[in-house]
Amino acid sequence: MTPTEGLDGLRAEARARDGEDPLARYRAEFVVADAGPLYLDGNSLGRLPKRAEAIAARTVRDEWGSRLVRGWNEGWVDAPRRVGDKLGRLLGAGPGEILVSDSTSVNLFKLAVAALKAREGRTAIVTDDLNFPSDLYVLGGVARLLGGGRRVVVAKARDGISVDPADLAEAIGPDTALVSLSHVAYKSGFLHDVKAVTEIAHAAGALVLWDVSHSAGVVPVDLEASGADLAVGCTYKYLNGGPGAPAFLYVRRALQSALENPITGWFGREAPFSFAPEFAPAAGAERFLVGTPPVLSLAAAEAGIDLTLEAGVEASREKSVALGKFLEGLWEKLLEPRGVTLRSPREAARRGSHLSFGHPEGLAIDRALIEELNVIPDFRPPDVIRFGFAPLYTRFEDLYEAMDGFRRILDEELWRRYAGAGPAVT
Amino acid sequence: MTPTEGLDGLRAEARARDGEDPLARYRAEFVVADAGPLYLDGNSLGRLPKRAEAIAARTVRDEWGSRLVRGWNEGWVDAPRRVGDKLGRLLGAGPGEILVSDSTSVNLFKLAVAALKAREGRTAIVTDDLNFPSDLYVLGGVARLLGGGRRVVVAKARDGISVDPADLAEAIGPDTALVSLSHVAYKSGFLHDVKAVTEIAHAAGALVLWDVSHSAGVVPVDLEASGADLAVGCTYKYLNGGPGAPAFLYVRRALQSALENPITGWFGREAPFSFAPEFAPAAGAERFLVGTPPVLSLAAAEAGIDLTLEAGVEASREKSVALGKFLEGLWEKLLEPRGVTLRSPREAARRGSHLSFGHPEGLAIDRALIEELNVIPDFRPPDVIRFGFAPLYTRFEDLYEAMDGFRRILDEELWRRYAGAGPAVT
Repeated sequence: MTPTEGLDGLRAEARARDGEDPLARYRAEFVVADAGPLYLDGNSLGRLPKRAEAIAARTVRDEWGSRLVRGWNEGWVDAPRRVGDKLGRLLGAGPGEILVSDSTSVNLFKLAVAALKAREGRTAIVTDDLNFPSDLYVLGGVARLLGGGRRVVVAKARDGISVDPADLAEAIGPDTALVSLSHVAYKSGFLHDVKAVTEIAHAAGALVLWDVSHSAGVVPVDLEASGADLAVGCTYKYLNGGPGAPAFLYVRRALQSALENPITGWFGREAPFSFAPEFAPAAGAERFLVGTPPVLSLAAAEAGIDLTLEAGVEASREKSVALGKFLEGLWEKLLEPRGVTLRSPREAARRGSHLSFGHPEGLAIDRALIEELNVIPDFRPPDVIRFGFAPLYTRFEDLYEAMDGFRRILDEELWRRYAGAGPAVT
Repeated sequence: MTPTEGLDGLRAEARARDGEDPLARYRAEFVVADAGPLYLDGNSLGRLPKRAEAIAARTVRDEWGSRLVRGWNEGWVDAPRRVGDKLGRLLGAGPGEILVSDSTSVNLFKLAVAALKAREGRTAIVTDDLNFPSDLYVLGGVARLLGGGRRVVVAKARDGISVDPADLAEAIGPDTALVSLSHVAYKSGFLHDVKAVTEIAHAAGALVLWDVSHSAGVVPVDLEASGADLAVGCTYKYLNGGPGAPAFLYVRRALQSALENPITGWFGREAPFSFAPEFAPAAGAERFLVGTPPVLSLAAAEAGIDLTLEAGVEASREKSVALGKFLEGLWEKLLEPRGVTLRSPREAARRGSHLSFGHPEGLAIDRALIEELNVIPDFRPPDVIRFGFAPLYTRFEDLYEAMDGFRRILDEELWRRYAGAGPAVT
């Protein structure tokens, strides 16, 4: 077999897989320009659903423009809960357990403070070093703010890719108030076992807070069944909610009346439009709302959530796993022989919907992929190139094209043109 | 003079005033349907600028849809500061002192916590009972969260309309850490003297935080010259930024490095895209950013801010004062004789851009205005009907039409159809 025959065979296989893809029709639901980039950045910002464009236009013109302030009574006030309930169907939560609100970091702050106050006397917040940096920052800030010896204990991923549950179990103890982790690690794609970790934490008397930003919509999450107490997440990755679309928070029903939101704004009050002078928390998870939600961003986000519900998370996961295995196979054939390392777990069951590759010239390769080949991955310091695959619109052939391009950049040393340059995409 | 001649005279006067209005041309910049409501709710939600519709469409289609994740490097990341700097030109702040971020309540929380931490040892937060309820809730929550005897001291408006500076001065003392007030009171429209109150607070060693939600864009605010330390505000009232458009915060340059944001998210970190594991606050007021901003809502908000800058706050204030005096005159002639009370200050220099009227049947009158006459004010419990006038699009004749409608509702007892009903507009 010559190298060219090998490549043709891979492309043919990719096309055959695309031909059998039961989710293939969803690609037409998104804006995909013919001359546009080969977009493998689904986990930083998902593509634009065509419906979102229509919803945004309608919300601006018909709601804001024509209904004006009446819009608040005609759907806007209810949107955080209504859309949250849709997310609940994706994430295994019941009605009123998920609310769309603020940013992921603000939601994490609110829930982490509430959890620490509910576990007064315990001082440790346990996390791991695969957690998203903003989560680590927020948890550190919460510990400093509340004082009283509170501190963040960080379990280490020994290989930089996966956290051994035994290491996590060792970090969790009788002093642990809260365990707060990313379900899927933003860099390596490592996937925690929500149920197992939650059980370890509960056995120690701690509460558990999951950040499902990198799993929502693409990895099955069953918040109720897993026993998770709290969760946060964003809507702009695999949910395709749009840039900076509002985030969400989950509070298990049994805990709702026991937890207090430290940021006591009017949308978290019972009857906010009573304009009463004293705060009284809303009955359910609504107490974790704060201020007026950004209606346009929230409205546009609903389209991607609807599409994810229509496709079904199980089907999305199935395709995502297949895409991941295919990408891993391409790496084995095309990149590993050229010195590129895999920085994600080998076991498909232990990773989310992206794979990361390491190379000492990672930054220059990332730039070359974008500038020379119109392929968009993410670069993550110091040397990782991350390829996200969004089951609703990523094709097997996209992965083939991207990896063949990666190979060319190495073989033809196209990356040298970008040596020493900064990243093109945040 | 018969009543009808009197009414015709008032209408003629209104038309004459509109004919001389130097800001009249700005009305065409907004979406105003011919058959649409007579909209006097500018301070709950301003009208849609036509440019905002175009910006929103472009942001969705061309930026999210085509540029995808590259949008972050092509303007989105800089937007909180870039738009904040425009607000700075409106509010007397320098570059980098104002940032667009989160909701007003979240911003108030961040700044209030930072201020209390910076005045460790002092336990009182002084406010007044004209402050917006959400501000009172947040301040109370901050005091409870930080503990250590911290408490909120509420100066009272003796008449329910205005706060006597002497009462405020008496509430402020050596134990005061922070004075936090609404520049313009949401209900009565009372306008605090920012400079005078700030001087009283500073003389006592306290920091001052102004909520300029009801004044931004329509009442001159000079944050630098007034000596104000901190400020927050929303963009969806007289700035016409759209429903739930992101809010802003101001931190005086000299204080920026001394204050710490309790919510330490990645957008408040120096070099957020370094993904470094430890938090290090950004150098300036950027440290008060938290998470990913809602790009669509933020983009749409810029149109109204631009229009406000083009018209000029001084010219807007001049027209607003004239509209307020004209409305007061209409009340004197048409409503006061019918038992409607004025719930706003009589002195134009001491009020913002809305007037409030009281009537025991206020709620039913509000409903009748909306349902019978297509006039939209706000109702505020227990008995206040609030009429906002937005100098960029409210006409003198609009005020005449609304007050004549109010008169008819009383004379013909149209409000009886709505007795006992709930408010139609939040």
